[in-house]
Amino acid sequence: MSISELRTDPISGRKVLIAEDRAGRPNDFESTAAVPTSDPSFCPFCVGHERDTPEALLELLDKHGNWQVRVIPNKYPAVLKVGTERSETTGTQLLSTQPAYGAHEVIVESPRHIQDLTELSIAELSTVLLVYRDRLRHWSRDPSMRHATLFKNVGHKAGASLQHLHSQLVALPFVPEAISNELQAAKNFHDQEGACIFCKLLQEEINLRERLVGEEGDFIAFCAYAGRQAFETWILPTRHASHYEQLADDQARPLARLLQQVVRRLQTQLKPLSYNLVLHSAPFGEQASDSYHWHFELIPRTAQLAGLEWGAGVYINSLSPERAAKLLREAGS
Amino acid sequence: MSISELRTDPISGRKVLIAEDRAGRPNDFESTAAVPTSDPSFCPFCVGHERDTPEALLELLDKHGNWQVRVIPNKYPAVLKVGTERSETTGTQLLSTQPAYGAHEVIVESPRHIQDLTELSIAELSTVLLVYRDRLRHWSRDPSMRHATLFKNVGHKAGASLQHLHSQLVALPFVPEAISNELQAAKNFHDQEGACIFCKLLQEEINLRERLVGEEGDFIAFCAYAGRQAFETWILPTRHASHYEQLADDQARPLARLLQQVVRRLQTQLKPLSYNLVLHSAPFGEQASDSYHWHFELIPRTAQLAGLEWGAGVYINSLSPERAAKLLREAGS
Repeated sequence: MSISELRTDPISGRKVLIAEDRAGRPNDFESTAAVPTSDPSFCPFCVGHERDTPEALLELLDKHGNWQVRVIPNKYPAVLKVGTERSETTGTQLLSTQPAYGAHEVIVESPRHIQDLTELSIAELSTVLLVYRDRLRHWSRDPSMRHATLFKNVGHKAGASLQHLHSQLVALPFVPEAISNELQAAKNFHDQEGACIFCKLLQEEINLRERLVGEEGDFIAFCAYAGRQAFETWILPTRHASHYEQLADDQARPLARLLQQVVRRLQTQLKPLSYNLVLHSAPFGEQASDSYHWHFELIPRTAQLAGLEWGAGVYINSLSPERAAKLLREAGS
Repeated sequence: MSISELRTDPISGRKVLIAEDRAGRPNDFESTAAVPTSDPSFCPFCVGHERDTPEALLELLDKHGNWQVRVIPNKYPAVLKVGTERSETTGTQLLSTQPAYGAHEVIVESPRHIQDLTELSIAELSTVLLVYRDRLRHWSRDPSMRHATLFKNVGHKAGASLQHLHSQLVALPFVPEAISNELQAAKNFHDQEGACIFCKLLQEEINLRERLVGEEGDFIAFCAYAGRQAFETWILPTRHASHYEQLADDQARPLARLLQQVVRRLQTQLKPLSYNLVLHSAPFGEQASDSYHWHFELIPRTAQLAGLEWGAGVYINSLSPERAAKLLREAGS
């Protein structure tokens, strides 16, 4: 296995991982690849097939001693913890490269061959949500890492290469662009207004109600005011918290209930439902921040990005978030 | 027809057009929509079906008086030139909105039901490339507009809703994020180095040769050093020019030849080939700039964007640009 490259676009500063070893995985290139098999007898994530994956980093056992959640290194990693995070940048002034340092894990969320988090019990999903927290805590103690992105790709259109319910974690020695942009904007707002912009936003959403999708315990879900895709939904804790690592044990169940409620409602509106679920959390090694607020972004893949998105960075969404939220509320839970 | 909304994400500043009228077009939502028909008898862009489209803004006639290229308003516009570009922003501090002011045109590039620019003759494609220039010149004279994005979506995976060869132009009263980021980076480089970063980049690519795909006249094509998708290819004029509006009549043919060469080579590697072609050009109302350099970005849609792209803004590309360029060079022309 060779280490990938981290390249920076000389003009835009965009980071790209050139990860040729991933070309062997089931989904590359799509134009020639088949839709992932739904046959569990070939699924490396199913119970009994543990030898088809790298050795587990962590297994959470149930009371019978069987694994319930299994954390493994990604067999096709985009980044690897090899050398050091300060590896020398080589190349020219414009065309620079460095080894793609980081960690890339897969969290297999059930021994059963199920495809969506709505097929877990609330107790099982709560356990998964606490495993997310514990893996973030694990990587936050590694001084070479600055941030980890936790995400889930569900469905072929969302880039999933295997159907069996799983998430991925990518720990990096830098804060990725999407997060650093949010951190900066949140800091600017806090400097000016003395408040967390996310706390202010969720208060407005609670008052207006028109984009609300659901609430459970300390968590709220609403359709994003400027959603990039139809039905884009954000899930936030209503009590300020910058790091997902701060999640308390007893917060996992209400968060699990809300996640399932949102996904079930989406399933009634979009068949088949493909989505990306991404966790935005503050960088490691920083104290709890007054300005940043962790949240999940759930992005159903309803339309292909086209020229305006790729060329201008301007998105077109053909369903208003207010109408989307109304459809989701009407969908029942 | 109601005017869309332009919303700004309260945290990231991302611009989103909420364009509900577009939901009626053939491709929304994809989950329920069929693949666009290939039957020309239902194609509104074919000769003889002119009544199925809005009235033409411009028709370029051949020597027999038949139209060869036809520019029409988009029947499902994401933006409209209604009111003024200074329309009041309403809403709250965080949740602000304004009418989606702008212009959205379709350039129908042939009366024949063809699907790719490689099916045009060089003379025909040259004419199309000059129509792009002339439409940009047209909008550059409108003081309410600051920029226009010209793009082409080819294939279902690239977001095309109609197969018949066409491009789109979206003129906006602001400079979109992708362009303003590039402008700022190019200006910073010019301030420090006294040179155009794109001129420097293409000089390096010419010297290194490993990412070169082709050259014709004053134009060069190379695989982008940090391409977001496999085979991402940029096409630039080798002589510095900031605005595509500056294109000289006699530059159209070599540019047409290079575009066709690149797409033909891609077609041999990717079957079927879906791609977005996007033009990056300097904003209207500015003098020719020493720091910015117009270019086309051709982005084959080889992999679905997944959680890391959406959540972190970090891309994974599983084919190195050097290998991609080699494959394209070997593909012949």
